[in-house]
Amino acid sequence: MKELDFLKEINETLDDNSYLGDDCAYLEDLDIFITQDTLVEDVHFSLETTTPYLLGRKAVAVNLSDLAASLSEPKYITISLSLPKTTEKSFVKEFYTGVNDICTEYGVKVVGGDLTGAKKIYISVAAIGKKVSPYTSSRANAKDGDLIITTGESGSSACGLFCLQNEVKTTKAIIEAHTNPMPRLKESKALSSQISSNITLMDTSDGLADALFKVSQASSCDMIIDFDKIPFNEELKAISQKNGKNLADWILWGGEDYELLACISKKDYEKLDPKTFKILGSVVKNSQSIGNVVLNKDSQTIKIDETTFSKKSFDHFEEKL
Amino acid sequence: MKELDFLKEINETLDDNSYLGDDCAYLEDLDIFITQDTLVEDVHFSLETTTPYLLGRKAVAVNLSDLAASLSEPKYITISLSLPKTTEKSFVKEFYTGVNDICTEYGVKVVGGDLTGAKKIYISVAAIGKKVSPYTSSRANAKDGDLIITTGESGSSACGLFCLQNEVKTTKAIIEAHTNPMPRLKESKALSSQISSNITLMDTSDGLADALFKVSQASSCDMIIDFDKIPFNEELKAISQKNGKNLADWILWGGEDYELLACISKKDYEKLDPKTFKILGSVVKNSQSIGNVVLNKDSQTIKIDETTFSKKSFDHFEEKL
Repeated sequence: MKELDFLKEINETLDDNSYLGDDCAYLEDLDIFITQDTLVEDVHFSLETTTPYLLGRKAVAVNLSDLAASLSEPKYITISLSLPKTTEKSFVKEFYTGVNDICTEYGVKVVGGDLTGAKKIYISVAAIGKKVSPYTSSRANAKDGDLIITTGESGSSACGLFCLQNEVKTTKAIIEAHTNPMPRLKESKALSSQISSNITLMDTSDGLADALFKVSQASSCDMIIDFDKIPFNEELKAISQKNGKNLADWILWGGEDYELLACISKKDYEKLDPKTFKILGSVVKNSQSIGNVVLNKDSQTIKIDETTFSKKSFDHFEEKL
Repeated sequence: MKELDFLKEINETLDDNSYLGDDCAYLEDLDIFITQDTLVEDVHFSLETTTPYLLGRKAVAVNLSDLAASLSEPKYITISLSLPKTTEKSFVKEFYTGVNDICTEYGVKVVGGDLTGAKKIYISVAAIGKKVSPYTSSRANAKDGDLIITTGESGSSACGLFCLQNEVKTTKAIIEAHTNPMPRLKESKALSSQISSNITLMDTSDGLADALFKVSQASSCDMIIDFDKIPFNEELKAISQKNGKNLADWILWGGEDYELLACISKKDYEKLDPKTFKILGSVVKNSQSIGNVVLNKDSQTIKIDETTFSKKSFDHFEEKL
């Protein structure tokens, strides 16, 4: 089975699935956001391309990224760590030093979790954040005429992983995009403080095109994207050419970039720093919208529909490492 | 390495470990409790002795048990489920039906989580509960003269697992103690409504003797226990004798019973139903207390100290299944 079929099954089985579908759930009576994300050895990471310290940081970062995508300020995490019996004490020490460091940097407290044995390393982190904006963010909020904007650069994480796996020399920035991603909490705070209505927001953890397609589906709109406007690290061009890799695939489908993708009104965009938030295109939502991504690239128009999506998107059930 | 060494390492690495040590963490500013517990295939369960439906129920139950041990009312859970690629759709359907059923029974909502691939099944649940008592529960609250009390019966889960693994015929109650444990939320609520000061409370998920020893250490007291007063299902006697198993080991160290163990004042105990809460012994806390469990059994006095504990307690890094 594929991930999407499993998710469909879960949605159909639960009496109330109204909390599912965004990066975090908002618990109204408690006024908090909650998320839980898991990293599995040989599915999401390999100790051949990262260190216990960086793994500790990343396990927390991917959850803080979900909170950032919910306009939420992270406060607490719990961590469940499952380790093979043969694991060295130094692994636990370094992993938790990474956890401690990133938590200190973002004012987050580790308040619990558990520790068990397992054949492979599993790390599941639950994170709680406070609501900081009077407005909500959701994948389903995109409105006709909204600008589609993004933070940072796309494709670096996938390129970084490729370089690590194939011992290709590259820059520290590209390697760290993969091994030590920064949750976009500062950028999320900037959005929170400037917007004047509900916005569309999610992170690009499963790839930029994946995020664009999920928004187009959740908001029943078309996302018109100018490929040339997607920011990426120039280094990717040379590395992809030299190694026979497809640059556009890294940029669109690479995933694990943990950037923010938003759709907001032109009025709100004018209050943001254009160096931090780059415009990729705009939302079209009318009776003809069919929930696709329309990509203008090299004078061509490429449609990302369900068929493309299911072929190209990151499936958490595929072992890629 | 053993579990205790890993936990020591974690405590030493985190700048602030003040939230760790009890079944749940209390987040004062949010007035909520949080816990996270994980079940790993071949460490905590095997599909040879349970079903996807019961596994879904149990993954939630073990977390609700932690909330019960914190005098907390469960409200929300997130679930991270990792599955082999070859898993059938029916597994997901049955697992989530179990999750949905137990959540409905206890008024809990499933609000998120994730789904990934893995070689073995791995289930991590985070649960959030509301504070319902003005008093706190902790392992460190035991006072001199407190009564040591417990709910339910001890040892049934271990006996149930033995019967399942060895195809020994037994009662439904004993099998279900293992496959479908009931979190003691009703009993926790009864405690909440009757106590007039902070109490000592934890669940017996890792075994009764394990819980007694952890309280004796956290509260720096001695726990004087009359073995004959520990409630257990009479069926265990016959099964243990017939199969050459040690009855006392099941009762004391079997684990996974998810009963509540409490130390409370005599005054508070008088307000409780003695059929629900059975007295096992009393707390001694004076300058001579060395943080041990003192077990009176068959006219003998047995001490459970660190050596016994580390030999007998359930190590989550040992594969027992």
